[in-house]
Amino acid sequence: MTSLEDALRPAVGAAHVLVDDDLRAPYETDWTRRFTGAARCVVRPASTAEVVAVVRACAAAGAPVVVQGGNTGLVGAGVPAGGEVLVSLARLAEVEPVDAVEAQVTVGAGVTLEKLQTHARAAGLDFGVDLAARSSATVGGMIATNAGGIRVLRHGSMRAQVVGLEAVLADGSVLTRLGGLAKDNTGYDLTQLVAGSEGTLAIVTRARLRLVPLLPARAVALVAVAGTDAALDLLAAARAELATLSAAEIFYPEGLDLVRSHARLPAPFDGPAGAYVVLECAARTDPTDHILELLSSCKAVEDATVASDRAGLERLWAYREAHTEAISAAGVPTKLDVCVPLGELTALVAELPATVARVTPTARVIPFGHLNEGNLHLNVLDAGDRSEEVTDAVLRLVAAHRGTISSEHGVGRAKAPWLSLSRTPEEIGAMRRIKAALDPQGMLNPGVLLPG
Amino acid sequence: MTSLEDALRPAVGAAHVLVDDDLRAPYETDWTRRFTGAARCVVRPASTAEVVAVVRACAAAGAPVVVQGGNTGLVGAGVPAGGEVLVSLARLAEVEPVDAVEAQVTVGAGVTLEKLQTHARAAGLDFGVDLAARSSATVGGMIATNAGGIRVLRHGSMRAQVVGLEAVLADGSVLTRLGGLAKDNTGYDLTQLVAGSEGTLAIVTRARLRLVPLLPARAVALVAVAGTDAALDLLAAARAELATLSAAEIFYPEGLDLVRSHARLPAPFDGPAGAYVVLECAARTDPTDHILELLSSCKAVEDATVASDRAGLERLWAYREAHTEAISAAGVPTKLDVCVPLGELTALVAELPATVARVTPTARVIPFGHLNEGNLHLNVLDAGDRSEEVTDAVLRLVAAHRGTISSEHGVGRAKAPWLSLSRTPEEIGAMRRIKAALDPQGMLNPGVLLPG
Repeated sequence: MTSLEDALRPAVGAAHVLVDDDLRAPYETDWTRRFTGAARCVVRPASTAEVVAVVRACAAAGAPVVVQGGNTGLVGAGVPAGGEVLVSLARLAEVEPVDAVEAQVTVGAGVTLEKLQTHARAAGLDFGVDLAARSSATVGGMIATNAGGIRVLRHGSMRAQVVGLEAVLADGSVLTRLGGLAKDNTGYDLTQLVAGSEGTLAIVTRARLRLVPLLPARAVALVAVAGTDAALDLLAAARAELATLSAAEIFYPEGLDLVRSHARLPAPFDGPAGAYVVLECAARTDPTDHILELLSSCKAVEDATVASDRAGLERLWAYREAHTEAISAAGVPTKLDVCVPLGELTALVAELPATVARVTPTARVIPFGHLNEGNLHLNVLDAGDRSEEVTDAVLRLVAAHRGTISSEHGVGRAKAPWLSLSRTPEEIGAMRRIKAALDPQGMLNPGVLLPG
Repeated sequence: MTSLEDALRPAVGAAHVLVDDDLRAPYETDWTRRFTGAARCVVRPASTAEVVAVVRACAAAGAPVVVQGGNTGLVGAGVPAGGEVLVSLARLAEVEPVDAVEAQVTVGAGVTLEKLQTHARAAGLDFGVDLAARSSATVGGMIATNAGGIRVLRHGSMRAQVVGLEAVLADGSVLTRLGGLAKDNTGYDLTQLVAGSEGTLAIVTRARLRLVPLLPARAVALVAVAGTDAALDLLAAARAELATLSAAEIFYPEGLDLVRSHARLPAPFDGPAGAYVVLECAARTDPTDHILELLSSCKAVEDATVASDRAGLERLWAYREAHTEAISAAGVPTKLDVCVPLGELTALVAELPATVARVTPTARVIPFGHLNEGNLHLNVLDAGDRSEEVTDAVLRLVAAHRGTISSEHGVGRAKAPWLSLSRTPEEIGAMRRIKAALDPQGMLNPGVLLPG
């Protein structure tokens, strides 16, 4: 009897079927170190045809598959629960020339965000999504999770950048839609169905992406405000008055302290503040004056520092972007990624500490995130063995504030038990029917997204 | 035995089950007069609950349903093939207050675009989609067909405006997602799956829509250029230099002649031109200077007239917007709505007359449309009884230029036989599996979109 591995080796080359423990290990634990599991083997196809061969071999063997991009996911969707074939798409790294007329590009699923950005900028354009994990996060993973990040305010989430894609279904058939037409109304939007489906419906192998104008002139303000309410006032003023607004982020004193000690950064202001907002404008010509005008007229501003040169932009952004790393250095956080209507944000932030303290008094919550969308990353440190209970308490609080249990990280394995807090039974029923229609064996990413 | 009509009357009120020929007639023929069919009856529910009752009654009776909004569709998707229960959503016309903080609003499927625009503007905001049929086209129909129109360049198609929706499935269960969260990554995007599905997966009853900033200052240029190539040069310059560009439309001398004689408009320029481009900028402050600067620097411009006052805007837009009506007054057109990559547009326009002439020498093609997206509405007049053959020849030409058979009108009954020109067998297979999963009886809009 031929083993599955013997079928996979000719499909992708023997060097790309990793069976030994030490070779598999880098793929088996996620970035947070909270999710880990042994893969049956790791397979590294280099083309769509090789992915098809891998999927067919696994289907024939009845072997479930887990799909991995840059392994920067935060909800355990890209690492095995135990025993799956792990399909790494890192080698699908082809980058086609930029189509400047259509402002589009086709790239492989394994291309990193950073490589895509560099490629687009060399052609005088830019990619609309940016996030701190840019050096590792891949296009395929970003599509599968509908990644968000710091420019959603301006250009939308990942799904808004995806004009079309190529994806392998569980039966090995390939959906190909890379023509890049700006408007194509010929039936169900399979591209957008696959986007955000976390690898449960298809394996994305290539994508046709829209590019956005390169806006070389940027200005950033780091603003001290009294608290969440004041931050929302500042946001409302910025939205109304800054046509070039491209990011509006928020963080709090607890996060600033962690970041400062981890990254050895100076205090941005003389005194403390209740919250900090990062506003960025991007334009063809220097938008600094517009930001300064806003800062001088908006009463919510307590203190502010502005930069528009490269070093200054990096210096101010570091306070926000170093959060993930600083938190990770302080321990293994319980990472929650929630979104509430803006009108509920102040109450949510106010109620968080007590909600967590009721579960475990030793834990600390570090909130930060994307103010414009009411999207907070809630990192709970020192929850000890009460991570599940903290998650439950916080997600229920979020749901009570009409929020969602996942704003941009996805559901994965981490949040699947709480899916019903954000989706109705009818919605989950429809999702299950679609999953069964496209993957009747339940072969792709079992246990991810839809609760077992 | 109780008849279906007897079950429907208590569900929606006897006055809203129309059985007599003369009462049904206004619903049974579409705007183009090309599609017509007798409904078993017309049902006019006024709420989601009534739609559920209607769907359940029809499902129990095994009676297929066709769904209708403002009956402004152009592909026969909203009128019966014969014998269906026609569900008109016109009475689902509730408009909720604008949520200014989130810049969103929830409205019923039967609300017209014009009513939505008026409502949004009264709150200091605007709706991102605009099209000539605004007084009749309804939100539900626009979602079902993923309507486009003249502002796609700036704000995207209808699906980009839909934050969430309420929709009734074929089994009478209701998907409700009206929370309006800016970012919600909890599983399959059922909203976007239903959008553009032409009533074949669910009946949209309410929608949560994003609103856009109201940009009160507008400037429009009507520009004479040598032909399609020159129009594309002008577009490229406008895209690169006009940050406030909100529309870029094209029409040709044949269309201008029809419009002028139908709407009794004066010649816009002293001499003839190969093509005409309408550029519009929208901003918070008057963008006229930016347009003038572009016109003076772009070599593709042969002549131009600019307006920024209300009367002037209407006068210039009339040349473009009166096309549909002027063509309709000249006969019953074969309406094709195609999109090709911009690089193929010149060749497509050049090859059209001969392609049509080979089928029927008497026919005339009037192209006009949305230049920015390479989306042309090809209206063929005087095709006589060769409408099907003309459609076939033109759609094959479009496919040869890597284009789609429907850019914004949808597939409906009119284009279903040609779906395979735009979708692969694998895509059509996946669509059929999804349709079967959500509507196993094939009750919703049979014959629409998916070829029988």
